[in-house]
Order: sequence, then C-alpha cells, then structure tokens
Amino acid sequence: MVNKLRFIPLGGLGEIGRNMTLFEYGKNILIVDVGVMFPEADMLGIDLVIPNFEYLRDKKDWVRGIVITHGHEDHTGALPYLLKEINAPIFSTRLVLALVERKLREHFGRKYAADLREINGGDAVRIGPFTVHPVPLSHSIPDSMALAIDTPVGRVMHSGDFKIDFTPTAGEAPNLRGIAALAAEGVLALFADSTGAERAGFTPSEKTLEPAFDRIMREAPGRVIVASFASQLNRLQLLIDISQRYGRKVAIAGRSMAQNFETARKLGYLKVPKGAHVRLETANKMPPKQVTMMVTGSQGQPEAALARMAAGTHRDIILNETDTVVISSNPIPGNEEEVARMINQLVDRAHEVVYPPLAHVHVSGHASQEEMKLLISLVQPRFFVPVHGERRHLHFHARLAESMGIPRKRIFEVQNGDILEIGEDGCKVVDKTAGGYIFVDGTGVGDIGPRVLRERDALAKSGFVTVFIPISKKSRQLNGKPHMVTRGVVYSEQADEVLKGAESALQTALKRSKRSKSAYETNARDALSRYFYQTIRRRPMIVPVVVEL
Amino acid sequence: MVNKLRFIPLGGLGEIGRNMTLFEYGKNILIVDVGVMFPEADMLGIDLVIPNFEYLRDKKDWVRGIVITHGHEDHTGALPYLLKEINAPIFSTRLVLALVERKLREHFGRKYAADLREINGGDAVRIGPFTVHPVPLSHSIPDSMALAIDTPVGRVMHSGDFKIDFTPTAGEAPNLRGIAALAAEGVLALFADSTGAERAGFTPSEKTLEPAFDRIMREAPGRVIVASFASQLNRLQLLIDISQRYGRKVAIAGRSMAQNFETARKLGYLKVPKGAHVRLETANKMPPKQVTMMVTGSQGQPEAALARMAAGTHRDIILNETDTVVISSNPIPGNEEEVARMINQLVDRAHEVVYPPLAHVHVSGHASQEEMKLLISLVQPRFFVPVHGERRHLHFHARLAESMGIPRKRIFEVQNGDILEIGEDGCKVVDKTAGGYIFVDGTGVGDIGPRVLRERDALAKSGFVTVFIPISKKSRQLNGKPHMVTRGVVYSEQADEVLKGAESALQTALKRSKRSKSAYETNARDALSRYFYQTIRRRPMIVPVVVEL
Repeated sequence: MVNKLRFIPLGGLGEIGRNMTLFEYGKNILIVDVGVMFPEADMLGIDLVIPNFEYLRDKKDWVRGIVITHGHEDHTGALPYLLKEINAPIFSTRLVLALVERKLREHFGRKYAADLREINGGDAVRIGPFTVHPVPLSHSIPDSMALAIDTPVGRVMHSGDFKIDFTPTAGEAPNLRGIAALAAEGVLALFADSTGAERAGFTPSEKTLEPAFDRIMREAPGRVIVASFASQLNRLQLLIDISQRYGRKVAIAGRSMAQNFETARKLGYLKVPKGAHVRLETANKMPPKQVTMMVTGSQGQPEAALARMAAGTHRDIILNETDTVVISSNPIPGNEEEVARMINQLVDRAHEVVYPPLAHVHVSGHASQEEMKLLISLVQPRFFVPVHGERRHLHFHARLAESMGIPRKRIFEVQNGDILEIGEDGCKVVDKTAGGYIFVDGTGVGDIGPRVLRERDALAKSGFVTVFIPISKKSRQLNGKPHMVTRGVVYSEQADEVLKGAESALQTALKRSKRSKSAYETNARDALSRYFYQTIRRRPMIVPVVVEL
Repeated sequence: MVNKLRFIPLGGLGEIGRNMTLFEYGKNILIVDVGVMFPEADMLGIDLVIPNFEYLRDKKDWVRGIVITHGHEDHTGALPYLLKEINAPIFSTRLVLALVERKLREHFGRKYAADLREINGGDAVRIGPFTVHPVPLSHSIPDSMALAIDTPVGRVMHSGDFKIDFTPTAGEAPNLRGIAALAAEGVLALFADSTGAERAGFTPSEKTLEPAFDRIMREAPGRVIVASFASQLNRLQLLIDISQRYGRKVAIAGRSMAQNFETARKLGYLKVPKGAHVRLETANKMPPKQVTMMVTGSQGQPEAALARMAAGTHRDIILNETDTVVISSNPIPGNEEEVARMINQLVDRAHEVVYPPLAHVHVSGHASQEEMKLLISLVQPRFFVPVHGERRHLHFHARLAESMGIPRKRIFEVQNGDILEIGEDGCKVVDKTAGGYIFVDGTGVGDIGPRVLRERDALAKSGFVTVFIPISKKSRQLNGKPHMVTRGVVYSEQADEVLKGAESALQTALKRSKRSKSAYETNARDALSRYFYQTIRRRPMIVPVVVEL
C-alpha cells in the first residue's frame, strides 16, 4: 500500500459540480479542487451540496496542500467548509487566489488570513512527496490550468475544466506544447473533464461570438443588456471590447459579477480602457444607445438581476421597448422552465430578446469530443480515468478513449468515494469511502438527509394534516375533542365539507380504538389516510399527536 | 355585437397545452379542441391543468358542436371534464373519434355513448351558423387537420397542430392545394400553431429518421428498445417498417402505447404485416436480435416503462449488456433532469444508449419558421392571430407574420380569456373572461388555487412546525405544556438540541403573552420563526393551534 498512489474522488464523478479529488501517497494527501454543487430539483430547500469530508477526518495532518485548478464555484466553493476542519496551504494562480481570498473573508471575516501560495505555468512546485506542474489550459475564466503531478510511482495528469480555445478573449491560450513536453516522459494516468462528452466536434472559441454581438451592439436602438454567468470573465472582456467599438459604456448589475469584475480588473485580467466602465446610476442617465449592461441571472434565478428586470421588480433597471436583451448562456439542466418563464416576460417588455439558438451568443466552456481526443492524443496515458460529469458523460468519455486505442481494461469508470490504487504495474479499485452528498441548508451542514427530503417531498405533493388528540392520563379515554390542522391539502373555503367528513371519520376511529397512545395514533393515521384518499384521492402526510392531560 | 364573430381562446395561449378555442356568433358557439396541460414544476402535487369553463356556464345551450383537430391529449384530454357540464356533438376524423371514445369510456364507464360524428378532408359540415371544412395537415399522428370555418362575417382558418411533412410515415400528406383553394376566396383571420416559432428553417420529415434507425436495427447486437410518446403513431409505423426489414418483431410495453397501437391498427392507420407484432411474453423468449421493443417513458416519467427498466424495477423487461436503447424524443422543458437521471442509469445497464443529439432519432411534430411562413403565404389572411405556444412563441410568430408584410395592427397577440371581436371592417379585443388555470388534483377539480400551492411550496422548502397550545377556558392561562411537532425541518436524531431550544423559546414567549387566543398564536409564531431563523437560518411554516380545555 505504501508504494502505491491512491486516487480518491470525493465529488464530481456522477454529477456536475462539487469537484474534489485526493491524491494520497503514504501519509501524504494532495487535494485538487474543493467545489460545491447547486442542488437538483428534488433536493427540496437545500442551498448547496458539498463533498463528504469523512475520509479526511482521521488524516487531517496528512494533508500537504490544496491545489485549485480555476476560480469557479464548483471548484472552490466548498473551501470554507473544508478549512473549518483542516489546515493546509492553498496553491493556485493569481486570479484564483484573489477570488478564493474574497470568498474566505466573506465566510470567516475580513481579518481571515489563509495560507495562499501563488503558482504559475512552468513552475514545478513541491508539495510533500508530490511535484505539481501547472499548465495553462483554456476554459471560460482566465488562469485555468491543467496539472501534471509527479508522484513516487510516476507522473499523472489532471485536466481541470477545459476547452481548447486557441483564441480566448481573456487569459492565456492553451499551452499544448507544454502539455506535450510534460507528457513526453510518460504519463501513468490521465484524469480528464468529461462534461461535454455528448457533444460531437470541437467547441467554438469564445471569439466566434464576436459577429453576433457586433451586429447586436451596432443595430440595437437602445441599451444592450447582456446576461451571463458572474464568473464568465472571458465573455465580459469580449463585450467590453465590442461596446467600446460602438461608443457604448459598460455598467454592471449584480453583486457577484461586479465583485468579479473589480477583482479581475485590478489584477489586470480584464483590460478595461479608461472610461469604458460606468456605474449603474451613471448609465441610467446616459443616452440608451451609449449603454451596455452586464447583468446576472442568465439561469432565470428569481433573486438575480435579469429575472427581477423581467418581472418589473428591479430597483435600478426598468426595461423599456428600446432595450435589447441578450441571454448569453444555455439553461443548465433543471433551469429550463425558469429561463423560459423569464423569456416569456421579457418579450413583453423589451424591443428584442436574443438567446441561443436564435443567435450565436453562447459557447460552452467545456471540451467537445474532438478536443477530448486531442488531449488524450497529446498525453497518451497508460491509464485513463474520466472525471467531472454525470454517469453518461463519464461513460461516453471512456468510450472515446477506447476508440483511440486505449484498452478497456486500462480505463476506469470510477465513482465518488472509490479508492483507486495506481502503480506502474496496474491500477485497481481497492476500497470505498463515503462519497455521498452533504447538504447545506441555512447554517446546517449535513443535518438534512434523505429522510427530511422525503418528508419535504411528501409535503410538497399533498400537504399535511396534524391532529392533536387529548386523552386522560388515568383512564386513557378521549379527554375532549381532537383538533385538526391542515395546510397544502385543500383550499380552505371549499374544504369545509371535506374537513367535516375527516373529523367524523377520525372520531369514529378514535372511539373504536384501544386505549393506548400508539393505538390512538395508528387508528387516527389509518382513518384519515383512508378518508382523504377515498374522498379526494390525495395522500396528505398525517401526523397524529396524542397528548396525555 | 350580434353581427360580429367572437374568438375566445380558453387555453393554449401563453402556454404549451390545454388548447381550447371558442368561436361565437350570436347565440352560437363552436368549440375547437378541449385539451389538458401537464403541470409545471411549481404546480406541486397537481395531476393535470384544464381550461376554465366559466365563460360557458350560462351559455350551455349555445354550444352547437365540438371539433377536435387531432388525437393528442393537449387537444382532447379535458373533454371528460367539459362533457360533465355541457352536451354537444363531437366532430372529428375517424382515428380521433376512436381515441376520444376510449378516453370517455375510461372516465364515464363502458356504456357511455358520446355523440360522435365523423368528418373528413373535403367535407363541408354545417354546425349551427358555421360551416367547417377540414383539411388534412401533417403532424406526428395521422388524421390531423386544419380547419377552414365559414362564418356569417367571413371565412377564418385554424391550423391545428401542424408541420409540413411531405413524406409522413403514416397518415396523409398535407393538402396544400386544399388549403390554397379554401384560401382563394379570402380568409378573414388565420389562427396558427406557434410552438416551433423559435426554430429557424424547416422541420425535417419523419422519414429523415430512417437512416439512423436503419443503422441501429442492422448493427444492434441484441434487442432494440425504442422509447417514444405513446401517441406518436408515425414513429411507430416507421419502426415497424424498419424492424420488418431486419427480421425483428415488434413488441409494445406500456399500456397507453399498446392501446393506441391496437386502435390505430384496427382502423388501418398502422400497417402491420402479419406476424410483425408479438406479445411481450413472446418477445422475451425470442433471440434478442429478432426483437424491437417500443416502450413508453421517453420523458423519464418514473412510473413509465423506460424509467422502470433503467432502475431495474420493470416486471417484464430486464435490460442487459446486449440491449440498444433509443430515446426517440427530446425532453419537454421541465423534464430534463429526470431524463438525464434515467440516461445515467441506462448507460450502466445497456450495450448502447442513443438519444438526440447523439444520432438523428427524433424530429419535432411542429412547424419551424419556414413552414409557418409557408402557411401564411398560402392563406394570406387579413388578420393574423398566433395560437398554441408560450408568450415568446406567440411573439416570434407574430414577428414572422410582420416580416411577411402583414401590418402590425392586423396582428393580434391575444391571451387566454381575451374576447376578440372580428368583423370585415376590423378586429379588436372587446372584453375578457376567465382564462386561468383550473387544477386537477386527485378527484378534485378547481379546489386547489394559488394559496394551497404557496403552502405546498413553503412546506417543500422548509417543512413545518405545529404547536398545540392548551389554555384554560376560564382563566385563559396556559393549561399544561405546549406540544410541538415538526416534519421536513431538521433530521430528528441531530435535532434534539435545536428542538429543545425551540421549546424554551416558545415557553418564554407564551409566558409573556397576553391571555387571548390570538396573542398566544401570534407570539408562538413570532418566537418560533425568529428562533429557527436565528439558529439554523431556516423558515419552516409555523402553525400554532390554541386549544381551550
């Protein structure tokens, strides 16, 4: 065991988000990325999902460092939760560290000082028994990188999130020669981003969005309002450049986007000519044809800027019939209905609403199949492990690798929590640790599990009925009338008859009941369940409470 | 008023589904389609959404007839609810009437005899003061039609759901000459399907799916299992034909699809060569390479055949590593997550899983922009009213008509419940009737409104806390301990401390309370809301019940 490398994914395999990987050698652990996932539709009321840190709990002093591959939430967002439990230096590029620092201070207070260590393409950074070589690789935010990691058993590579964008609008172009050079000495295992594995071909460059946006900025009779992800800095740069061309000033609405803009500009990642950026209040006083607004909420999130503008409830931005609104993203699966609802409102308020596929105003930040093949072809790993993606993405990525001649037995479709041991002679899953969801709801971390979610799901579908059943402590007989409360079951004004029927069904059942707490409870539950199903074919949650008086 | 035609849409405008239109002249009403809508994600617990029949309630004897344009649920599904309230003959083509008759008998019993009257392309059918001319127009089910309707103020046309499929795999090709001939005498108003208005170009013919399915049937090492809509009979015919070519027998899993198959075959709409169809049990005993299975559940519905096969819980069909599974549909907005989850399970069980865009295995049943233009070009109506679609679809369809030279003032983007008066001299919205959602939940129709849905939404997010507060009838003092019940708030094993804190916050508040029912209630609600938000940042629904003993 000691002379093997262990690869332990704690998140991002079998899902989009909460990417987190451990590399372990002896009593040394290197962590790559610590991300969050945004909840799926059936995770009712949940705010965030983070990786399960169980495996690390008795190995806190093994952790030598945390490397972050780029500055997106699904790679950095769970850092505050991890750093509550373990202490380790964080290695990344300059922009990422700035974003991470801001995040940590939001959580831990303005004086919090994390141990942040800058690394750059071309470096060779010792972290315990590992040597990490960062390589610039393009994505939708500058300063993204792949990693070559030298371990005592050999070199492995991790792609991070990537696309091959030869003409990015911000940040460095991908260093393919660097990857080839690092791979030349032989790569034991490649761990590569699978998000786009269903997509044939080559993801278009960010730069290909220029014609559509150029036309929009030129022809729009008034303001151009572009919604995109707060962290999509490459898009922001493109729009600053084109706005400049047509004499438009850029204003930003949405706190997260404004903060990212400030950070990236300060560090020089965004090139903003003097006067190209104006405050929202200033923009609101300018001739509309001289204004571009960048806003958050491209996913239809009800609390973000664009949805509020669509609903007419945004404090500072009131849409009018000269505005051109561009949604510069695709809906993330699960958000389609909210995005559609927002567009339905926008078409009533704006001059024009533009979104994919009506015009070429969005490209993915992830590699398509040909780029995945390109990476495999450059690296030529002995073992291949698809990471970052749902089951089907990992599966199609594995097939792709197989189609390029990597034998199936050297491809490992592993899951969160699988412990994969890698040696020169072979590779196998030797054990399993906790890899499941940890839910964050309010300030609670991990205190909501499947049971509470099942309760919420039942309540969502049919509401509840609680019944308070008073009994005498001595005689155990009913001591007064039972009291029933319902919510989410029937509309109360029309429900009088239904509820009266329920009360009488309940009373009958209680009268027939044996005189024990549990008998009263069971009978009340059965009688009411049966009653509501038979009369209105609904199944509210029935919660009887027997109280001894 | 008497010499005007009134167009009153009760469903389908501003939404996909529950299509229903009234044409009214004097005291005569002609109804076109009576469909259901499937609930959106935020309609928690709702089974179906139907049109609001309020407008018809005091005009029941005005209804001269109901014309159904084709046999899909979103055009026929609310008939049972309407026929509970009004009595009128139903006019449609043969296949539609057979499907409608089955549906009505399922609702009203096997002896129910509706007044069904067959009409066909080329007919001119008098219904009160209206003369209806059905014209075959292609869609994804045979026997779909557009309608020209002669009224005392002139001829209007309604497209029904349509695409222009010159090579349908079942049913008639669109009768464009028929439309042109009917339009030649002048069309006052065109009401046309807007569903595909975001899509450029021309929707591919059903026939274009042949190469992909041919390859799949030829190369698949075992069974080919194709999921599609139960009502997509054209797809079924295509797959029967190709299966035949490669010596595969077709079996059907899923009750609704099996029923539609039987009905369509009996009436001759599906051409099924002798022996081409086998029962599921027979198919399960045949060599896998000789089997095609058509199954329901292409939208990931958990109770349908494919989702159960994916989860390994289907009684009759157990997937194995020689099966090829084809999902021959696109997810309807809102179903993406469920479809993705199903695919993630399928890739683990099957040899291959194929779905759009991995292969060309699905085409829409609705017209794209060029087909919409084609229809407008043939009909050249004086007034244009986009129907069938969400706000954005209606909007883009209106723009399309404008781009073809119809002046904006002759285009009417109306909404459900709008009463549009149409005369030779003009057209305007003169009034508004109830056009909102009527929810069906269990056997309840219309007894659930926004308030119950808001309650369900709140319960879904954070659960509830009910508190029974016993007080003395006389002294109005607390008479014993309050009892608290929660569900969906916190996981009970970890929640002891939280709940103890809640109890003590509650007791403090009650002790300080004035001695009235409402004061106890208000104080309990405030204290608990504040407590749960401050300790765990959650907002459960707090329901205090003060009981006088």
